[in-house]
Amino acid sequence: MRLALRQPRSAAGDLARAMADLRADLATARAGGADLLLLPELYFPGYNVADMAGGALDATSPLWSDLSSAVRQAGVALVFGHAEAEREAEAEGGRLYNSATVLSPHGLPLARYRKVQLYGPREAALFTPGDRLVTFDLMGRRAGLLICYDVEFADHLRTLARAGVDLVLVPTANMMPYTTVADHLVPAHAAAFGLTIAYANLCGVEGDLTYAGGSVVAGPDGAVVAKAGQGPALLIVDLPDPLPAAARPTFACDLRPAGV
Amino acid sequence: MRLALRQPRSAAGDLARAMADLRADLATARAGGADLLLLPELYFPGYNVADMAGGALDATSPLWSDLSSAVRQAGVALVFGHAEAEREAEAEGGRLYNSATVLSPHGLPLARYRKVQLYGPREAALFTPGDRLVTFDLMGRRAGLLICYDVEFADHLRTLARAGVDLVLVPTANMMPYTTVADHLVPAHAAAFGLTIAYANLCGVEGDLTYAGGSVVAGPDGAVVAKAGQGPALLIVDLPDPLPAAARPTFACDLRPAGV
Repeated sequence: MRLALRQPRSAAGDLARAMADLRADLATARAGGADLLLLPELYFPGYNVADMAGGALDATSPLWSDLSSAVRQAGVALVFGHAEAEREAEAEGGRLYNSATVLSPHGLPLARYRKVQLYGPREAALFTPGDRLVTFDLMGRRAGLLICYDVEFADHLRTLARAGVDLVLVPTANMMPYTTVADHLVPAHAAAFGLTIAYANLCGVEGDLTYAGGSVVAGPDGAVVAKAGQGPALLIVDLPDPLPAAARPTFACDLRPAGV
Repeated sequence: MRLALRQPRSAAGDLARAMADLRADLATARAGGADLLLLPELYFPGYNVADMAGGALDATSPLWSDLSSAVRQAGVALVFGHAEAEREAEAEGGRLYNSATVLSPHGLPLARYRKVQLYGPREAALFTPGDRLVTFDLMGRRAGLLICYDVEFADHLRTLARAGVDLVLVPTANMMPYTTVADHLVPAHAAAFGLTIAYANLCGVEGDLTYAGGSVVAGPDGAVVAKAGQGPALLIVDLPDPLPAAARPTFACDLRPAGV
């Protein structure tokens, strides 16, 4: 499976520009033979925007048909982060989720995941946390989704690996100075759980945040398959094959403190 | 200036496949908005091939018109390594060079460089070393060329920087275990001489060699703009702007041992 990973600047609320950039990236991904384009957290409408609710997608957003036709035309699957408004609950004030949606190469929705581990007081004030992990099948592989801070929790990766996942796709919006997540923690978790992890970050400055860039694809041996620097980048790489079942870490540990 | 850097496997003597791959990479580079595609050392005919002379390009090779038209069609400049046969000297037994050629976005030859620092006894037996450094202008920048082992010599980078170069393009075919060149030396030289250096390596196994991959683009502050892992990759990134003249290192050092 060949992945195109895009490290862009934040859309900063400009949905039309983000959609135009996405079309261009799909075309490049297609030209490069990629099967899948991965974009960061809150690609729509941007991470550090004032009007998160105004830029959120709901079930009736016209952007869905644009996205579906752009993806279908390219024939490249898409994973992207977006704010999700659950208008059904509007009577109760409405809910926002920090979500990631997967579209198949035919433009059909394959999976949606809502970020479980919201980061910091701003996210906690804006979003309702998700309450479940999500897996989906793509080209014979079982994939899972996490968003940003989620990937720092070993338990989530262990749970996904135990569910048969071999590929974890992680839209993120990680900011300075937390470069250690992409530089060390993602490869370490990939090796510890026998997973390929693709971690697509934003870059550049948005308001009071400077994103850390450093998007990375790490294989199940912990090897870095590709890594972006601090500016915009598009990385096109073949993903490592899943580990044979016998080679997957078992995560079992029977050691206990003496006397317990 | 936007660069597409390709880290492929060695062509291993298959010129037709290498040309087809090059066309595909030009198309992807174009789709990704790249101005320039950079390929490794001895892209034609491969680095560790038995018949280097048989795969060398000379002035009459039909491949030149294919290259020119492919580049012109894409509108993307091209820098690639190739074996160069100097047939004019055939009366004297002919000479082979380990060369890099630059084609403008219009498909016209802009510059050619012949590797100065041949690496090891095999290269020394195959090739005649070049005897000069080369610079050329592209999109308002002054660029220089080095090939593989050349980049390990600080003197070459100092000379290019003093000649006004701000971008050094380095086709390479660096093998294991010499990962330190891409991991440390290229960023260190970039910072030391205030240059952007793009170092495009091969990957995979060819005969008794395993290429180190790890292709890297490093900016004049030493920051890594993008980095490939050990497998095939295409990296599309915006190159850092040249340093302002006042910020360029002067390379001057008047310190002398006491008493000299």
